[in-house]
Amino acid sequence: MEKHVYFFGGGKADGNESMKNLLGGKGANLAEMAGNDELKLPVPPGFTITTEVCTFYYKNEKKYPEELNNQVEDALRKTEEVTGKVFGDAKNPLLLSVRSGARKSMPGMMDTVLNIGLGEETIPGLLEKSGNERFVYDAYRRLITMYADVVMEKAAGLELGEDNGIRKQLEKLMDIMKEKKGVKEDTELEASDLKELCSQFKIKVKEVIGKEFPDKPADQLWGGIGAVFSSWNGKRAVSYRRIESIPDEWGTAVNVQAMVFGNMGKDSATGVAFTRNPGNGENKFYGEFLIDAQGEDVVAGLRTPAPVNNDSKNDHNSEFESLEEWRPELYKELFDIQKRLEQHYKDMQDIEFTIENNKLFMLQTRIGKRNGPAAVKMATDMVNEGLISDEEAVTRVTPDQLDELLHPLVDPQAEKKNSPLAKGLPAGPGGASGMVVFTADDAVEWKKNGKKVILVREETSPEDVEGMRAAEAILTARGGMTSHAALVARGWGKCCIVGCGAVEIDYENMLMRIGDAVIKEGEYITLNGTKGLIFKGDLPMVNPSDESTLLTDFLKITDSVRKMKIRTNADTPADSKKARGFGAEGIGLFRVEHMFYGENSQEPLFRLRKMILSKTLEERKTALNELFPFMKKDIKATLEAMDTYPVTIRLIDPPLHEFIPQEKAKLEEISKSLGVDMDELTRRADLLRESNPMMGHRGARLGITYPEVTETQAKAIFEAAAELIKEGKDPHPEVMIPIVALSNEFKDQAEIVKRVHSEVVEETKVDNIPLIVGTMIEIPRAALVAERIAEDADFFSFGTNDLTQLSFGFSRDDIGGFLPDYLEKGILPEDPFQSIDVNGVGQLIKIGIKGGRKTKKNLKIGICGEHGGDPASIEFCYRNGMNYVSCSPYRVPIARLAAAQAALK
Amino acid sequence: MEKHVYFFGGGKADGNESMKNLLGGKGANLAEMAGNDELKLPVPPGFTITTEVCTFYYKNEKKYPEELNNQVEDALRKTEEVTGKVFGDAKNPLLLSVRSGARKSMPGMMDTVLNIGLGEETIPGLLEKSGNERFVYDAYRRLITMYADVVMEKAAGLELGEDNGIRKQLEKLMDIMKEKKGVKEDTELEASDLKELCSQFKIKVKEVIGKEFPDKPADQLWGGIGAVFSSWNGKRAVSYRRIESIPDEWGTAVNVQAMVFGNMGKDSATGVAFTRNPGNGENKFYGEFLIDAQGEDVVAGLRTPAPVNNDSKNDHNSEFESLEEWRPELYKELFDIQKRLEQHYKDMQDIEFTIENNKLFMLQTRIGKRNGPAAVKMATDMVNEGLISDEEAVTRVTPDQLDELLHPLVDPQAEKKNSPLAKGLPAGPGGASGMVVFTADDAVEWKKNGKKVILVREETSPEDVEGMRAAEAILTARGGMTSHAALVARGWGKCCIVGCGAVEIDYENMLMRIGDAVIKEGEYITLNGTKGLIFKGDLPMVNPSDESTLLTDFLKITDSVRKMKIRTNADTPADSKKARGFGAEGIGLFRVEHMFYGENSQEPLFRLRKMILSKTLEERKTALNELFPFMKKDIKATLEAMDTYPVTIRLIDPPLHEFIPQEKAKLEEISKSLGVDMDELTRRADLLRESNPMMGHRGARLGITYPEVTETQAKAIFEAAAELIKEGKDPHPEVMIPIVALSNEFKDQAEIVKRVHSEVVEETKVDNIPLIVGTMIEIPRAALVAERIAEDADFFSFGTNDLTQLSFGFSRDDIGGFLPDYLEKGILPEDPFQSIDVNGVGQLIKIGIKGGRKTKKNLKIGICGEHGGDPASIEFCYRNGMNYVSCSPYRVPIARLAAAQAALK
Repeated sequence: MEKHVYFFGGGKADGNESMKNLLGGKGANLAEMAGNDELKLPVPPGFTITTEVCTFYYKNEKKYPEELNNQVEDALRKTEEVTGKVFGDAKNPLLLSVRSGARKSMPGMMDTVLNIGLGEETIPGLLEKSGNERFVYDAYRRLITMYADVVMEKAAGLELGEDNGIRKQLEKLMDIMKEKKGVKEDTELEASDLKELCSQFKIKVKEVIGKEFPDKPADQLWGGIGAVFSSWNGKRAVSYRRIESIPDEWGTAVNVQAMVFGNMGKDSATGVAFTRNPGNGENKFYGEFLIDAQGEDVVAGLRTPAPVNNDSKNDHNSEFESLEEWRPELYKELFDIQKRLEQHYKDMQDIEFTIENNKLFMLQTRIGKRNGPAAVKMATDMVNEGLISDEEAVTRVTPDQLDELLHPLVDPQAEKKNSPLAKGLPAGPGGASGMVVFTADDAVEWKKNGKKVILVREETSPEDVEGMRAAEAILTARGGMTSHAALVARGWGKCCIVGCGAVEIDYENMLMRIGDAVIKEGEYITLNGTKGLIFKGDLPMVNPSDESTLLTDFLKITDSVRKMKIRTNADTPADSKKARGFGAEGIGLFRVEHMFYGENSQEPLFRLRKMILSKTLEERKTALNELFPFMKKDIKATLEAMDTYPVTIRLIDPPLHEFIPQEKAKLEEISKSLGVDMDELTRRADLLRESNPMMGHRGARLGITYPEVTETQAKAIFEAAAELIKEGKDPHPEVMIPIVALSNEFKDQAEIVKRVHSEVVEETKVDNIPLIVGTMIEIPRAALVAERIAEDADFFSFGTNDLTQLSFGFSRDDIGGFLPDYLEKGILPEDPFQSIDVNGVGQLIKIGIKGGRKTKKNLKIGICGEHGGDPASIEFCYRNGMNYVSCSPYRVPIARLAAAQAALK
Repeated sequence: MEKHVYFFGGGKADGNESMKNLLGGKGANLAEMAGNDELKLPVPPGFTITTEVCTFYYKNEKKYPEELNNQVEDALRKTEEVTGKVFGDAKNPLLLSVRSGARKSMPGMMDTVLNIGLGEETIPGLLEKSGNERFVYDAYRRLITMYADVVMEKAAGLELGEDNGIRKQLEKLMDIMKEKKGVKEDTELEASDLKELCSQFKIKVKEVIGKEFPDKPADQLWGGIGAVFSSWNGKRAVSYRRIESIPDEWGTAVNVQAMVFGNMGKDSATGVAFTRNPGNGENKFYGEFLIDAQGEDVVAGLRTPAPVNNDSKNDHNSEFESLEEWRPELYKELFDIQKRLEQHYKDMQDIEFTIENNKLFMLQTRIGKRNGPAAVKMATDMVNEGLISDEEAVTRVTPDQLDELLHPLVDPQAEKKNSPLAKGLPAGPGGASGMVVFTADDAVEWKKNGKKVILVREETSPEDVEGMRAAEAILTARGGMTSHAALVARGWGKCCIVGCGAVEIDYENMLMRIGDAVIKEGEYITLNGTKGLIFKGDLPMVNPSDESTLLTDFLKITDSVRKMKIRTNADTPADSKKARGFGAEGIGLFRVEHMFYGENSQEPLFRLRKMILSKTLEERKTALNELFPFMKKDIKATLEAMDTYPVTIRLIDPPLHEFIPQEKAKLEEISKSLGVDMDELTRRADLLRESNPMMGHRGARLGITYPEVTETQAKAIFEAAAELIKEGKDPHPEVMIPIVALSNEFKDQAEIVKRVHSEVVEETKVDNIPLIVGTMIEIPRAALVAERIAEDADFFSFGTNDLTQLSFGFSRDDIGGFLPDYLEKGILPEDPFQSIDVNGVGQLIKIGIKGGRKTKKNLKIGICGEHGGDPASIEFCYRNGMNYVSCSPYRVPIARLAAAQAALK
């Protein structure tokens, strides 16, 4: 008979932490905590119904396997034995919680029902046992609310909407009661008020849903189990799974567990803690707790929680007594447990605990989410502590987390000039600016229309997930560092500030007030998520400092694992130095044409334009000779900055017409300089225009029709190298021919480069100028005939931007007309210009590598498209045997990590 | 010991016709004629030095194999035995000819030396034997001229130029002699004049070249052999080989053969003949001959030759006595021999014969060149005569020859209105017009500059080959149907008129006179090569009639061999009918957008433009509804014209901005019709412009963003089919989705088409409307993921135009900037848009076919790019398992032939 139900408790457990696929993360960890010999922690007993039951449930029209009922009964009996209580018993009733638990944590996305087993029959017993009437009716009204909302309203198929749902209607009754009693907080209501409310609730439930609240414990239990399974396919869960790429087939487990009560009075409490600080990674126990509260109160952020110890104190909670101060012995017990848990799991744990009448219970442990800086620090520290290996450390930080360390920050100069409107909790690092929106739907909509938005909410809830995703940053008025908003933002590495009480949101008028300031929907604000500061307006961002030893220490660890080289795409000495600082081991793409863009480009650009608009060889050579000194200087400076490292210099690549001046004055200047009249010059310019310039007369094609253009560039490269060698430097230029489709094109151009090389050697008498000539593989045909091209080429560099354009027939400049529809309709899973299209473009890359290496076994192969900084693409490159990836300077650290991770896969 | 020399003669031969690679075509056929038991023809004895000696010669610094000398001596002895003459003998001297002979005929491209063995020592004997002093000195002066030109001048490495060469200088002496003697023709000079000339020649040779003319027969022989081998690498031969794709390694054989003399007086003659008429294919013996002449005189076209029989008579030679009339018994012998040769070789033979003192000798036989109509007629006739099989017949006609039958002709109406300037010999069929040029170099140069030229020459020589190639047509003033110009033009299927005596060329002033007309260089003339007529001006051409049973009979033969279907690319009922007439078995490409081009397109185009410039779904749907009736009508007409045959209808493919009106008036009309102001409309039009429209928002991409565009087209197709079915017709539409790069794109569009199909079935109650939906494979990625696309597609059609564009990254519209340089520099062997680039694009096609058939074993696959009409590409398609090729209507016959030939390979 198949086992569907796994018991845990009383120092034993049917399951263990390795069974996450079957028991879900929560269930597996409860079993581990309860049953593992090293741990045997105080876990309230209970049992887990497997994820396979969920799968069965959806395959069989929401029916359960036949054996389930008996297995649940058996497990329930065991639970009763351990607790000494009996489910549904009038004297000594056992209450249960029913919670979801998928393989991968989906915080708040599925349903939970607490206090199951409470009803007219069992209330007297609980009153007797607890001696706390207020607690009993508070638990009861919570059960009714939760059950009516989660189980009954959904089962009835009613779509009442958020504002009209049963939960809201019941809360309204409570508000009326509070008003009547002249109190503000729920906790101020007395037992009799709550008892009265329970009666009102049951009548309201019957009225709205048309069914009685089921008072029988068994009905409540099965209703709860069904609700959890159903919530796997709820809208929130499905949308979260889509974002996180969690397969629908996984299903959720259901954890049924004896209730313990943090809300049983002043000797009870509940809390959430991390074995290290998830915000900065410090190896300090960090947590929050609330006295006389149930777990949901902490997460919901309705009350500001107290710190568990001094290390957890901050501006917002320092007034409260810490757990350590309040119950030192319990704190010690908890501290000891968390230490053991981290040692056992060898990773930072996110734990939930409850204190019921001065007794500590562990309700959950799981690997804690952390932001980027924290992940990096923890991984590095744990290696230093001897807790984990280098390899393990490499897997502990995602490229996205590392990216957080490189995220833009609010320009400190701008911060100095602008005083912040307010300060909140720094829940997600980095800076961001955007237009304020007040609803998740607006965030999604505005983002679609190309706007940068910051989502501002009282507090966020799982319903807001898509809007949070769409926003540049998130700001909430309530909640702590463990609130929903903080949790989600931390997972995504998004800039986030929570619990900024100064923010008053006026949803009706779509504006917020911070002190005297009024900020309307659509106005810009800027957040410093690292410090928790909020500014008015659109403040400039700066790139993060690269001097952090945090980053360098961690990257050193990754380097011991990495096998592929990392180069950078850089065109200037400044960028080269920046990239070297980040660990680049060479330049994979230096574009000669860069000198014609940006500042200081006027002089060379004018000469380039003259060259382009030349008609005769004479004219062209004159212009090229004028251009030559600029080229040589530019190339020399970067070769020098990258001294000892290889620098791949790509000869001029873009369609020439890109450089034709639009302004008449510029044309006139050229007309004068060339001695050609304007009519003729205009005619020449018109001749250069192309229907599809991306597939036009460019790259190698240009060098073939105008060999002197290639000659001049080669001469500039080799003379620059010769001069550096004479100056005692060690330059390593590698000449790269772009836009090659035919082996003959490469051969033709390489011959010119080689000829010029020997001429420069002859002239300069420097005989050790490196001569390495390779090509970009960026035209589909080049990949197909790579075997032939490799006969003459010293290296290949995959230009995946153009390769993607031509393989898809997608012009990057024109893709806006349809790409959004493609992504929305799921025709494309992602933008192929961001991550290599493995099925299509990837095949060409494989063909190209195979062909090239067939001819030259050790052919050096790299990638210099934008994909070189994309972790998935880096893994693809490594798997297919590339020697290096090249990416923009700020992506170099990410590439180092991604390449190390690829080496471990 | 290796055999380098193959003897033939006296009814025996060491070699035979199968040894062409070793003995060259001429040598193998001489051996066959001399030694084959069925033939044993009167061939002057001699021997062939193999092509391997030529290869050895070039590999070993122009040295011969050691054994060669002895083997030549042996063969020479045998030749002496058969002739009863002795080489170098004073009494009874044997004279020899030395001729080249490669595997493949290279007419006139290599050197020949005749009359070898004549010198001061042997002249007396020859005078004695021949009793003809004039003949002897004529032969001697020819030997000196030829030898000095071919052997000595070249060996000396002198570059005297054409006008100053030794041959010209000797000819000048002869002219002086003729002037002195007051005669015009060489033949009018007397023996003593020639004897005197021989002395003058020898002095001149010594003076110019610096060496004595070698009077020793053995020196002459080895000099001649060396000259022939050297001429293999002469400029003419190399350039011819390049045009004809003959490998340099093949080398030439050398044929040394006893001389027979057609110039030994009035009982001697020499001639060239064909076993069938090479101009029209008629099964009639056809030839020309000259009394008292050597073979070179016939080919050079200096004298107009006489016909061999009545069938060979024409306007130009009917005044002469035919061979049949002159020497009936010799004619009968020759007629019999040519009959036996054709039966033996089972193909039309081109023969050379000489009559020496009333005795017939066969000097050469080879497969005769023929023009297209002749090739087609011969192949068809020979099948009917039982001479050859269907398969053999298919190999007898090249696609280019068939193309001649489909060549444009001068418009008969225009011909009626213009009287011809003159009439010449119709040496190459079809019509052509172009600007007159008078030198081969000009022809090449002008053609390079994009001009259509007609090369007009007194007569052409092998030096002119490249110019002849460049010209649209060739016109010569002299020479017969077997002259150089006629021969070469026939081989190429080029329009050509020869021997038009009315043409007087004034090279100095670069003009020609025809009667009173003066035509200058650069002026247009038009040739009717089928009739031999020359017109002034640029007359219009018409396409050839397709009613010729010649064509249909031959194509029926090819159909019995062909295995692949042939479809056509047609957009109109008229084209469809035309193609059906040519044998098309369906339409492979019907472009919906065709209706927006050309006449009658104004109405639908206006509505298309409205659709394009619509912004809202409402606007677009209105425009589409207006467009719908035009679409349906257009599609219905072609489906009807192709009744019972499949019609692949490609949904709108081009970038929409192609259709945006440029004229303001048109825009205003649309503005009014749409009710949108001009500013807004202009803005919309601007938004549609793309940087690289070829890779822009088009094809399937359009259908995905605007599903209603696909819906409307599908509806038009299926409603048209339903109506035809109701009318008792049998339409077979196949819907083709263009510009597919992703399987999801196809799936999305196919789903729309299928939905509309069921809606139309529902509405029309016609339940047998065919539903076949396939895709073009024209984007590289589509070929790479063909396996996935085939899951949903019913067929693939390779769109090799776009596939070539994207694989190469060559924009067809912009390729003009570099393609000419690429072809000239040999970077590309040929235009990849004309013949499939097998190495690159071909690989993608193979990947696509393999992928598609992996998913669907019997997936129907065809090609609809322009390559579908290119024979090499058709062979590629067949070899790779395509079901059909589709090409323009006029290429259908070619495709039928090429597909049949592919099936035989």
